[in-house]
Amino acid sequence: MKMKRESKLVRIFIGDSDKISSIPVYEKIVIEAKKEGLAGATVFKGIMGFGGTSRIHTSKILRLSEDLPLIIEIVDEEEKIEKFLKILEQIFEEANCGGLITIEKAEVIHYKAVEKK
Amino acid sequence: MKMKRESKLVRIFIGDSDKISSIPVYEKIVIEAKKEGLAGATVFKGIMGFGGTSRIHTSKILRLSEDLPLIIEIVDEEEKIEKFLKILEQIFEEANCGGLITIEKAEVIHYKAVEKK
Amino acid sequence: MKMKRESKLVRIFIGDSDKISSIPVYEKIVIEAKKEGLAGATVFKGIMGFGGTSRIHTSKILRLSEDLPLIIEIVDEEEKIEKFLKILEQIFEEANCGGLITIEKAEVIHYKAVEKK
Repeated sequence: MKMKRESKLVRIFIGDSDKISSIPVYEKIVIEAKKEGLAGATVFKGIMGFGGTSRIHTSKILRLSEDLPLIIEIVDEEEKIEKFLKILEQIFEEANCGGLITIEKAEVIHYKAVEKK
Repeated sequence: MKMKRESKLVRIFIGDSDKISSIPVYEKIVIEAKKEGLAGATVFKGIMGFGGTSRIHTSKILRLSEDLPLIIEIVDEEEKIEKFLKILEQIFEEANCGGLITIEKAEVIHYKAVEKK
Repeated sequence: MKMKRESKLVRIFIGDSDKISSIPVYEKIVIEAKKEGLAGATVFKGIMGFGGTSRIHTSKILRLSEDLPLIIEIVDEEEKIEKFLKILEQIFEEANCGGLITIEKAEVIHYKAVEKK
């Protein structure tokens, strides 16, 4: 089953050591996206980067304290995304961490598995 | 050598356990993109996410059956992309798996290595 | 603290074995992006793909010589990005490697951690 529509693609750049209480911020974002009924959220881990903080982080130097860059990608209709941006703002304020969010327009094709009889 | 042109960026969100016969869907997509002569295709594996199915998957829980989210990124001229979207549709139908495809306009700069004499 | 602005998202597709002297091209790009004061740069490693070269690479076949695909994502204001594209061109020429750069418009929300008194 196929559905086509105009949507928005949100990409959130944060570090994997950013936390609210003891919960990683990226986990919090995925859980909230699920609660809000968004179409999907995916977290990818980078191997090197810099951003919110000014240091360059790399997975080459093996340290437990390492803060590697993450990206969380979320896709849905404009209306749902606008609502979720407010939740993201609260999460960033609570975590008090640096981060970058990009919002792009995208055409989205949604495939759903058809249940076999 | 440098070439600049208007192109389309296609991003396919699926799970790493989605299969056609015994071939992973992401491998099938990369092989077909190569056959069609597209400029490039790259597969990235996520560490956490949800999408086609409603469960949240994470690489934290180590299970062999785990279905981690993948993204496949493909860039080329509009005409070639339009043709490839039909092939993608057939792959999704054959696999009968859930998935999301985003299509964005992008300016593309293509660098080619110059052979040394 | 939150700031909103029109920006550009640059995505660079190269291989992890591309080098200038003995420095990986992706490291060179991140270091130069940092020097130029860009807002952020993040490197992600793919698990399979093809592009600059025509072979399909995959992390399934464990070989030391393997050239896995990488993506470097950079976000900043148009003016800074335009300047950085010239630096990227020099890097690609020096490395003489194949690669693809996509440039997209994106709305960017920038969060900065607030220092506690």
